Amino acid sequence: MIREKYARLAYHRFPRTTARYLGDQRVDSAPPEEGLPDFHPPPPQEDPYCLDDAPPNLGYLVCMQGGILFVYDNKKMLERQEPHSLPSPDLETYTVDMSHILALITDGPTKTYCHRRLNFLESKFSLHEMLNEMSEFKELKSNPHRDFYNVRKVDTHIHAAACMNQKHLLRFIKHTYKTEPDRTVAEKRGRKITLRQVFDSLHMDPYDLTVDSLDVHAGRQTFHRFDKFNSKYNPVGASELRDLYLKTENYLGGEYFARMVKEVARELEESKYQYSEPRLSIYGRNPKEWPKLARWFIQHKVYSPNMRWIIQVPRIYDIFRSKKLLPSFGKMLENIFLPLFEATINPQDHRELHLFLKYVTGFDSVDDESKHSDHMFSDKSPNPDIWTSEQNPPYSYYLYYMYANIMVLNNLRRERGLSTFLFRPHCGESGSITHLVSAFLTADNISHGLLLKKSPVLQYLYYLAQIPIAMSPLSNNSLFLEYSKNPLREFLHKGLHVSLSTDDPMQFHYTKEALMEEYAIAAQVWKLSTCDLCEIARNSVLQSGLSHQEKQKFLGQNYYKEGPEGNDIRKTNVAQIRMAFRYETLCNELSFLSDAMKSEEITALTK
Amino acid sequence: MIREKYARLAYHRFPRTTARYLGDQRVDSAPPEEGLPDFHPPPPQEDPYCLDDAPPNLGYLVCMQGGILFVYDNKKMLERQEPHSLPSPDLETYTVDMSHILALITDGPTKTYCHRRLNFLESKFSLHEMLNEMSEFKELKSNPHRDFYNVRKVDTHIHAAACMNQKHLLRFIKHTYKTEPDRTVAEKRGRKITLRQVFDSLHMDPYDLTVDSLDVHAGRQTFHRFDKFNSKYNPVGASELRDLYLKTENYLGGEYFARMVKEVARELEESKYQYSEPRLSIYGRNPKEWPKLARWFIQHKVYSPNMRWIIQVPRIYDIFRSKKLLPSFGKMLENIFLPLFEATINPQDHRELHLFLKYVTGFDSVDDESKHSDHMFSDKSPNPDIWTSEQNPPYSYYLYYMYANIMVLNNLRRERGLSTFLFRPHCGESGSITHLVSAFLTADNISHGLLLKKSPVLQYLYYLAQIPIAMSPLSNNSLFLEYSKNPLREFLHKGLHVSLSTDDPMQFHYTKEALMEEYAIAAQVWKLSTCDLCEIARNSVLQSGLSHQEKQKFLGQNYYKEGPEGNDIRKTNVAQIRMAFRYETLCNELSFLSDAMKSEEITALTK
Repeated sequence: MIREKYARLAYHRFPRTTARYLGDQRVDSAPPEEGLPDFHPPPPQEDPYCLDDAPPNLGYLVCMQGGILFVYDNKKMLERQEPHSLPSPDLETYTVDMSHILALITDGPTKTYCHRRLNFLESKFSLHEMLNEMSEFKELKSNPHRDFYNVRKVDTHIHAAACMNQKHLLRFIKHTYKTEPDRTVAEKRGRKITLRQVFDSLHMDPYDLTVDSLDVHAGRQTFHRFDKFNSKYNPVGASELRDLYLKTENYLGGEYFARMVKEVARELEESKYQYSEPRLSIYGRNPKEWPKLARWFIQHKVYSPNMRWIIQVPRIYDIFRSKKLLPSFGKMLENIFLPLFEATINPQDHRELHLFLKYVTGFDSVDDESKHSDHMFSDKSPNPDIWTSEQNPPYSYYLYYMYANIMVLNNLRRERGLSTFLFRPHCGESGSITHLVSAFLTADNISHGLLLKKSPVLQYLYYLAQIPIAMSPLSNNSLFLEYSKNPLREFLHKGLHVSLSTDDPMQFHYTKEALMEEYAIAAQVWKLSTCDLCEIARNSVLQSGLSHQEKQKFLGQNYYKEGPEGNDIRKTNVAQIRMAFRYETLCNELSFLSDAMKSEEITALTK
Repeated sequence: MIREKYARLAYHRFPRTTARYLGDQRVDSAPPEEGLPDFHPPPPQEDPYCLDDAPPNLGYLVCMQGGILFVYDNKKMLERQEPHSLPSPDLETYTVDMSHILALITDGPTKTYCHRRLNFLESKFSLHEMLNEMSEFKELKSNPHRDFYNVRKVDTHIHAAACMNQKHLLRFIKHTYKTEPDRTVAEKRGRKITLRQVFDSLHMDPYDLTVDSLDVHAGRQTFHRFDKFNSKYNPVGASELRDLYLKTENYLGGEYFARMVKEVARELEESKYQYSEPRLSIYGRNPKEWPKLARWFIQHKVYSPNMRWIIQVPRIYDIFRSKKLLPSFGKMLENIFLPLFEATINPQDHRELHLFLKYVTGFDSVDDESKHSDHMFSDKSPNPDIWTSEQNPPYSYYLYYMYANIMVLNNLRRERGLSTFLFRPHCGESGSITHLVSAFLTADNISHGLLLKKSPVLQYLYYLAQIPIAMSPLSNNSLFLEYSKNPLREFLHKGLHVSLSTDDPMQFHYTKEALMEEYAIAAQVWKLSTCDLCEIARNSVLQSGLSHQEKQKFLGQNYYKEGPEGNDIRKTNVAQIRMAFRYETLCNELSFLSDAMKSEEITALTK
């Protein structure tokens, strides 16, 4: 119920079945996928860069208070401190909710109960598999024209700066050097620098370059060394090349990066059945980052029908603060969110950003989760406006303030009929288990979720709430957890809502088709059946930010309904037997709990 | 020494280093890669199908005796039973040699010694890795223009009938149905049958066909079920479709199969760095199989510079015998080998077969090794001429008689300056450990070798003799051994001569690039370094049937020399540090043994 509250507030998704058992009356009358962005991708014949449809200025004012942006109808209301009637988060309630869950996950009997239910779920699936494996396959065999290769798959977690594989980056660098060595590509202290000069200063001839000397691939050296992993983003170890080839802001206006991303997009379009949700960075150093990013997107025509964009915000306030680029954490939040409020209130004066936001479906929060923080987030914590120390706020602090601002923004956008954003942070890759508690409240879905392995209560909650988890076992294998120990298979069996994603093809993958490599290895190592693979693919479309219309096209008219009713095997190639099993199993778990609740209520009443 | 004797007799290969320690004086003067076929692939501008260069008839006669073909200079010599002076195998010696090795592998102290040396080899490599991993990578980084992607790789073990992946086969079937439904593709009891009729009789519309209904992929159901695996060669479970699409002999003269194989070949040629050694079947039912196969090859122009062919002989005498297609096992051997002797003695009258044999580099022996045989092969066994029972001869019997005939044939061909053949049987995939003893004597190299895991003595012998092993962990994973338990990594570490191969892309692989999938999964699951991968790739070229000239081009001028001297890092991307480690380690093991031998000799002398 707590998660449901936060999800509804932010227009995040919540499973209909679970909602029904929680007694939510709205479920059956609710429009499909209530919280989804109501944006439709432009039809192929339409110009995706048309700037003409920007709605007029509402004239609202925005002001940050305690790290959260508030909207005022006009100057007078601002002076009176009477915000526009949008829901606003309440830190006190939030910390109470948070501590409630924290108490729950350490409660002995609850742990035992959840542990047992999870074991039961796993055994139940084994039994299902033994009894129904062949029937499932028979269903799939008699399903015409659809197989694992032509069901839709979304790469639900991928960083744009690593979305090409190492060989692709290598070929691109060689190509630019061959075709335009004398082009000015940078400027340093007023001096223009050509591509040739860049490589000369690195004492390197790109003709000799190999994937070895490029050295962007993660190896055994990166295991438990996120710092080493981060430096793999620098080709040949040179940050100049990262700036030139993998950034949206540089002397070339990010042209090289845009070209490579577009090459990746063309491959997706040709593959026809693959989609991806690449992350682009907004750092919050400066409010100009947004218009520049929108400019990059439009100028280089980066739009692709097979890509939907997510904005990642690195949790590196401490670095900017120590370089004196920011006075407070509040300023960082303002730089990230104020431009979005302005573009939402007055799209006509922010046409490019307004346009770009149509293709952005969510936010991600990224960085090394294993970094320890001394600060314990509570309602006594200094608010972002007065968080001026050089210390980095903890993970949960970042998540709350990102959620709070996205929530207000979504409500404002919803009021205008504009698309909303999903909060999809990296969570549970490493570090403290409490990260998964924060995300349980604030996130629509998460990337990684490995540490659910360590908390039966949280894992069971993630199951009941069917929180989508984009997993990347190959990435984990290079950074945090050996492939054979990855819990993906176990999570899938229990019925958690998992998908497969690549994270960073540049660092982790070998073949031309990174997502297929991810599926192939999972299929081989864990002996997944075709039905398993197609269930994962279906999950990936469901948890993605693709529009309602696209999901109907890819999964079936009624995809938003739960159970076999919501499955169109002709599109998904998932057996109805499987769907029925999942649905009955979830209902069984939920009714157990709700029966227990009722009998407790009766006991209480009769006392 | 025993292995060396059999290798020299058959023009198989034997490592120079080991030979030197065995006191072989010929090593340093020996021509490079003595036993290799001296065939050169035609240069690109030349017609690979030119039938004009067939040498004249020698007029020799051939006659089978005791399962082995003997060559006679003329009729008179035949009558006198005086064969041409080619080496001829001697069953009695062979069984003595065989029992010697069998005694060795069960000898307690020898087992302990070998077990300890193998443990030592593994630990030594770990140490090498810890100390030199970064230096190796540094060497590779400073190696210009060459990386894992552009080193040559040979798929050393692949069956032609499964060399396309499932999606490729599916697409091809759909394409033929779409473009030529009314073509006559078969004949049954005098009635011509069109492609449409074939599918009508199967109650199937190829438009609806999917990889699921095609059902050629191995799944969990094939584990330890070689029988089920074999039936996966039938698309949609229909042997009609196997005959039509995956056979060289049928109403269309194998046109469809040839077209698919050529599509696979074109992809290899485009990839530029990948080669493959597909197996084509000769069953031995009938001597006409050979001219038909040669016809198929030439008529459909199946030649590709990136493929070299191997003939696989299934061990299914019992099936043919029970169907009364063969009177004895000797007849089967005759059907397999006599046409080759005839084409070697008189190429002018067997021009097509003579031409085809230029592109054939070896023989394979295939079937389910786990099938038990009641018969124990010895010099008391009935010889093939009188092996007329319905019982199948055991594995070791097959191997000996294949070896014996190949050996005589190679000597005859060598005398004429024609190419020789390597015997490369499937061995040690399952079944009895003694298979590996047979292959130790008779094979140039083997496919699989999994069971070396179970015998320290044999494993150590395979190490000392550097017997090439083409391993296919993805195939094993579906049939005999879980991926994580596959010994490839361990064998590689110890220094056994392993390569990676796909076996059956149709049944086992998911992506378009089966061999890359094989390398990628090995790299990910076992965290192999670039140097490991390139060492495997180099091994694959060495153990392949590519010509001396090609190996010089792909591995370096001196590739046949052992140790760092034989390595050209600019072509192989294998670090010299690694090469030196391997060489020193092997010399160390060998000198240990030879020192022990010497001191034993001295002890014997002074007694």
